[in-house]
Amino acid sequence: MHLTQSLHRNVQQDGDGVATIFGDRVTTWAECAERVARVAAGLRALGVGAGDRVAILSLNSDRYHELLLAIWWAGGVVNPCNVRWSPAEIAYSLEDSGTTVLCVDDTFAATVPAIQAAAPVLSTVVHVGEGPTPDGMRTYGSLLDEGTVEDTRRGGDDLAGIFYTGGTTGFPKGVMLSHRNMLASSLGAAASGNFLVPGGRLLHAAPMFHLADLAAWVGRNLTGGGHVIVPMFTPDGVLEAISKHRVTDALLVPTMIQMLVDAPGVAEADLSSFQKLVYGGSPISEGVLDRVRKALPGIVLSQAYGMTELSPVATLLGPEEHDDPVLRRSAGRAAPHAMVKIVDVDGKEVPRGEVGEIVVSGDHVMQGYWNKPAETAAAVVDGWMHTGDGGRMDDNGYVFVVDRIKDMIVSGGENVYSAEVESALTTHPSIAACAVIGVPDEEWGERVHAVVVLQPGTALELEDLRTHSKARIAGYKCPRSLEVVDALPVSGAGKVLKRELRERHWQGSDRAVN
Amino acid sequence: MHLTQSLHRNVQQDGDGVATIFGDRVTTWAECAERVARVAAGLRALGVGAGDRVAILSLNSDRYHELLLAIWWAGGVVNPCNVRWSPAEIAYSLEDSGTTVLCVDDTFAATVPAIQAAAPVLSTVVHVGEGPTPDGMRTYGSLLDEGTVEDTRRGGDDLAGIFYTGGTTGFPKGVMLSHRNMLASSLGAAASGNFLVPGGRLLHAAPMFHLADLAAWVGRNLTGGGHVIVPMFTPDGVLEAISKHRVTDALLVPTMIQMLVDAPGVAEADLSSFQKLVYGGSPISEGVLDRVRKALPGIVLSQAYGMTELSPVATLLGPEEHDDPVLRRSAGRAAPHAMVKIVDVDGKEVPRGEVGEIVVSGDHVMQGYWNKPAETAAAVVDGWMHTGDGGRMDDNGYVFVVDRIKDMIVSGGENVYSAEVESALTTHPSIAACAVIGVPDEEWGERVHAVVVLQPGTALELEDLRTHSKARIAGYKCPRSLEVVDALPVSGAGKVLKRELRERHWQGSDRAVN
Repeated sequence: MHLTQSLHRNVQQDGDGVATIFGDRVTTWAECAERVARVAAGLRALGVGAGDRVAILSLNSDRYHELLLAIWWAGGVVNPCNVRWSPAEIAYSLEDSGTTVLCVDDTFAATVPAIQAAAPVLSTVVHVGEGPTPDGMRTYGSLLDEGTVEDTRRGGDDLAGIFYTGGTTGFPKGVMLSHRNMLASSLGAAASGNFLVPGGRLLHAAPMFHLADLAAWVGRNLTGGGHVIVPMFTPDGVLEAISKHRVTDALLVPTMIQMLVDAPGVAEADLSSFQKLVYGGSPISEGVLDRVRKALPGIVLSQAYGMTELSPVATLLGPEEHDDPVLRRSAGRAAPHAMVKIVDVDGKEVPRGEVGEIVVSGDHVMQGYWNKPAETAAAVVDGWMHTGDGGRMDDNGYVFVVDRIKDMIVSGGENVYSAEVESALTTHPSIAACAVIGVPDEEWGERVHAVVVLQPGTALELEDLRTHSKARIAGYKCPRSLEVVDALPVSGAGKVLKRELRERHWQGSDRAVN
Repeated sequence: MHLTQSLHRNVQQDGDGVATIFGDRVTTWAECAERVARVAAGLRALGVGAGDRVAILSLNSDRYHELLLAIWWAGGVVNPCNVRWSPAEIAYSLEDSGTTVLCVDDTFAATVPAIQAAAPVLSTVVHVGEGPTPDGMRTYGSLLDEGTVEDTRRGGDDLAGIFYTGGTTGFPKGVMLSHRNMLASSLGAAASGNFLVPGGRLLHAAPMFHLADLAAWVGRNLTGGGHVIVPMFTPDGVLEAISKHRVTDALLVPTMIQMLVDAPGVAEADLSSFQKLVYGGSPISEGVLDRVRKALPGIVLSQAYGMTELSPVATLLGPEEHDDPVLRRSAGRAAPHAMVKIVDVDGKEVPRGEVGEIVVSGDHVMQGYWNKPAETAAAVVDGWMHTGDGGRMDDNGYVFVVDRIKDMIVSGGENVYSAEVESALTTHPSIAACAVIGVPDEEWGERVHAVVVLQPGTALELEDLRTHSKARIAGYKCPRSLEVVDALPVSGAGKVLKRELRERHWQGSDRAVN
């Protein structure tokens, strides 16, 4: 099976039906396929052959949808850039993966010179924005002038994408996902009955570069229907898109859901078409769930848990399970395509109820980290992906994520690795030692929090710390709160005891602290 | 992915839940897995290793369910025998595939000496019946005494089964299906939303050796729930099982559906749990559909079309589409996992609306015919399975199977498709079931001939039949001769054996019977 297969199927079954709505631009499936075959020809003319990498750095748009399909149609591999990353981080991903073509929209066009300076591998930049094409870039429209090519129909174990995720050890890692990986996750999720509304109209407000939204996108293509795309999440933009374009379902992260139900416009908006909300990243708090039920009566919720390395779905929590006060704090149960277990440090399954590491196996487990065999071997052992998440499983297979073993913070749906932030902070002249943890936050789910020991005779303000870190890492990774201490608690082996630091913040929270 | 994966998942999520109900015997998923690990150990002790073939010749039972899983757990390949076949035909399949172990139930134990005589390859016969074990056979219980083995977890492209079909055109062919083939079909069908009730209780009344029922069985395992198994289809047995065991869904063939809705007991039976009926083999006639709606109000229908070589699902027709008088005569549209097109004799796609051969591609296309490379190459061309079915596709991708290509009646130079004539005849109040065939005719070359089973207490004359059909279809399509029979000969899959009906008419003719 290949990721363009469903494009052919949708043309066959629903050629005049809506493929994408973006602003006022409506594209049918037949038109979409025609454009995809042209863009693919354009990419081929740029030298993109089987297995070659093409990056997209863009807010959500119908062009994003088209490019994904065109890259695969041409036989290529997509590198969807995280739009929050600094030019240096993006350049690293381009160099590391040998990406020669970058497609960029208006919003990020200005960052291209900085990216190019740090990524000499780049040979062509294609401007996929709506405004005038900046100097030195190819116009997207000109790509469509090369005629059409036949779909290469690369699929199965062929590489489909390299998805860069934050590195715990400083540098990002490129997660290699095949066509089969991505299809396994979305088909399995759909087969459970706890995913999208078949044939519905899916809203893309979560970023399309992220695999959470991309898995929903693949799912929508597989079971028919159309996509309604907004550039990025804003509560008003989402409400308007739902009512204007009769959206049936959406994938959001809990932070977005909270902002949506708290938006002043929610009471007046016509949300009668809206049936299903799939969320991921973290469980939904009871407070937000209550507000969802008031603001969006009749809507059903499904939670998906996973990670990029799992394409991404591992477990699902269905609508009925949200009525149970205990189960709704879980991440649900293994999806039909996934095997999930909780293991100890030796990889041995622990008894039910005991905490260990969540490991996952199945056709959706990544092929590995690009050019990082050692990291791949450490992460995937005998076919089991070690998620780095701590968890326990109850007698009915429900998985409760208790904490991130790898010390990762999930803030506003984004993964922030403490090690990377700590690495940036310790370059500040006033900081002697530091530890970065996630603490509960109403708005962000978890907030990046810095605990620091100062150099003698120095002082430090949060603003100073943020300015320092913003010059080094993406804004969402920078600490939002600061705590100055005399010393960090350390173990006998000299390891910082983060658990102790977290404890006072997480007391009274639903989630256990490891 | 492997076919035992869902067994592990069901144990994890629903260990105390019902896996199978057979008569008074209820087995939980945890008990099932324990028994499967034991039976697998027993099979290994018999010498069954990776890729070795094990046959099952049995009516439906919970042991059938257990054996399928145990054979895969042990690393073996199943050869599910068609229970309608003669000992000679079964022996052929054993010899051809090199099957060394045969599991047989009480019903077919008496045929074993004849099979053994013609299949010296057979080294062990295991008796899986409930009665005393015949001489020379291993007792099933003794297989469970060898302890347990770990699941080999063979899967993906490993061979899972050899399914012998096509006995009607000379020698049977062994259709080789991998784990991936079978999982692709059932996952794709489930993803469409038009398959089973997730978590429900599925009735097995259609024969489990046939891939139609087996695909539903795989689907039930994948999305959880349990199996209610009756030895074979009888209207009363099915009604009793549904009401007693709260069955939610079933797979039947139209012949069975018709017998079910016509059964005297249908009005009194408690069918309140029954939600969904999936059928395959042929479209449902309007007459039967009307009776389903009267006898089983509130039930939804899905049709699956395919063949063993497609594991077996290619297209699906959903519940809503049954409300459309045109679409409900179609076989539905390509399932999410399948690519379907209509081609001419050169393999070129024909314009929509034109009749050609239905060809199908995807991960569910068989690996080939066992030891028949020439037949495989003729059937699967560039990954496209040539179904041998004639069909046309409308503008929305709906596939109308017009007839078996070889089975079309050419009468006075006109093509007459039996399915269309049969659909017109079944609306006649006196007709319970019918089959339309071509028979030799001096004047017309072939003559449209109707073979009918009457409703009890009714009579039918040819003129009455012609008047009825002329009101519905073109005159040249109306039967010119009529034959009333007590019952139509049907295959194990419930398909009418037209070859048998034709045979007596074509004997002495110089044309071969297809």
